Amino acid sequence: MDIGTVNSMDFGEFVDVFGNVVERCPVVAAAVWSQRPFRDADDLAEHFSAFLDTLPVPGQEGVLRCHPDLAGSELQRGTLSAESQREQSGAGLARLGAGERLRLAELNAQYRARFGFPFVLAARRSDAAAVPGELARRLRCPPEQELRTALGEVKKIGRLRLADLLGRDRALR
Amino acid sequence: MDIGTVNSMDFGEFVDVFGNVVERCPVVAAAVWSQRPFRDADDLAEHFSAFLDTLPVPGQEGVLRCHPDLAGSELQRGTLSAESQREQSGAGLARLGAGERLRLAELNAQYRARFGFPFVLAARRSDAAAVPGELARRLRCPPEQELRTALGEVKKIGRLRLADLLGRDRALR
Repeated sequence: MDIGTVNSMDFGEFVDVFGNVVERCPVVAAAVWSQRPFRDADDLAEHFSAFLDTLPVPGQEGVLRCHPDLAGSELQRGTLSAESQREQSGAGLARLGAGERLRLAELNAQYRARFGFPFVLAARRSDAAAVPGELARRLRCPPEQELRTALGEVKKIGRLRLADLLGRDRALR
Repeated sequence: MDIGTVNSMDFGEFVDVFGNVVERCPVVAAAVWSQRPFRDADDLAEHFSAFLDTLPVPGQEGVLRCHPDLAGSELQRGTLSAESQREQSGAGLARLGAGERLRLAELNAQYRARFGFPFVLAARRSDAAAVPGELARRLRCPPEQELRTALGEVKKIGRLRLADLLGRDRALR
C-alpha cells in the first residue's frame, strides 16, 4: 500500500485499516486522520507516536489498559485481537508450560497492582524466555518512568503493525 | 448498581461495564478509571465529560469519528453497537421511509465532507422528524462551534448511557 492510497482514504476507511495500530484504540487512528496528508510511512508512524504524547496522563494510562496481558487468559481462550495473537504466538508465549504461565500470571498481577495498567512489551522483538526477567525488572521501576517505558512499547508495537500494513517492514524497524 | 460497587472495580471490570459510555471508545472509560474513587453517579459522569475536554482537538475529532451515522447503513445492516441500535430505534430512525433515509444520507454526507466527522446527536432526546432540520441547521455552523456542539452531544449520550447502567435515570438527566 503506497502513501497516496493512505492519503486518499476517508476516515472510515482509514480506521478500518489502521484502527488496531494501537491495540483496541481505534480512536487513535481516527484522531491521526486529522493530520493527513502523510509524507511517507515514517511520517504516518510519527503521527501515531506524537498523538500518544499529546494525551493527558490518564489517557496514556487508558491506552495501556486496553492491552491484554502477555501470555494471559485471552491468549489461552483465543480472544486476543488478530495482531496480538500473532505477536504473542510468534514470541513463543503460546507454547509456555504451566509453570511458566503461572509465574508470568503472578508477575502480571503484581505489575497491574503496582502501576494500574498491564505489562506491555513489543513481544515480537522479544522472546518468551526473556519476558519474565524483563517483567520483573520493570516491576521495580518508579511509576512515572514505567509509564514512559510502557508507552514506548506501545509505539514500537504500532510501528511494527504499520510496517506490516504498509508492506515496508525494514523501513520502519 | 451503587457507587461503592463502581469504585471497587478493577480496570478490566470497569471497561467491561462502561466501555461504550463513549461510543466505540473504551479507552475513555479506561482513562476515567484513573480518577476513582467517584463520589456518586454525577461525579462519574462529570469525569467522562472532563476527560473529553482534556483531549487535543484531533482526539476530540477522533471520538466523533467513532460514531455511526444517524439512520445510516449500519442501522440498516444491524451492525450498530447495542446502545446505538436502541437509541436510534427508540427515536424512530429505524422506521423512516426510503425518501427520508435518502434525504438524511445526503445531509450526512454533506456534513462529513464539511466537518470531517459524522453528525452526532443524542437521538434519544430527539425524534426522527426533527433530525433532518437539526442536521441542516448544524451544517451551517462554523467548524469550531460545531466541534463543541458535537462534543456536547457525545457528553449527553454518555450521561444517558451512564444513567441506564447505574439505574438512576432521573438523577442524571
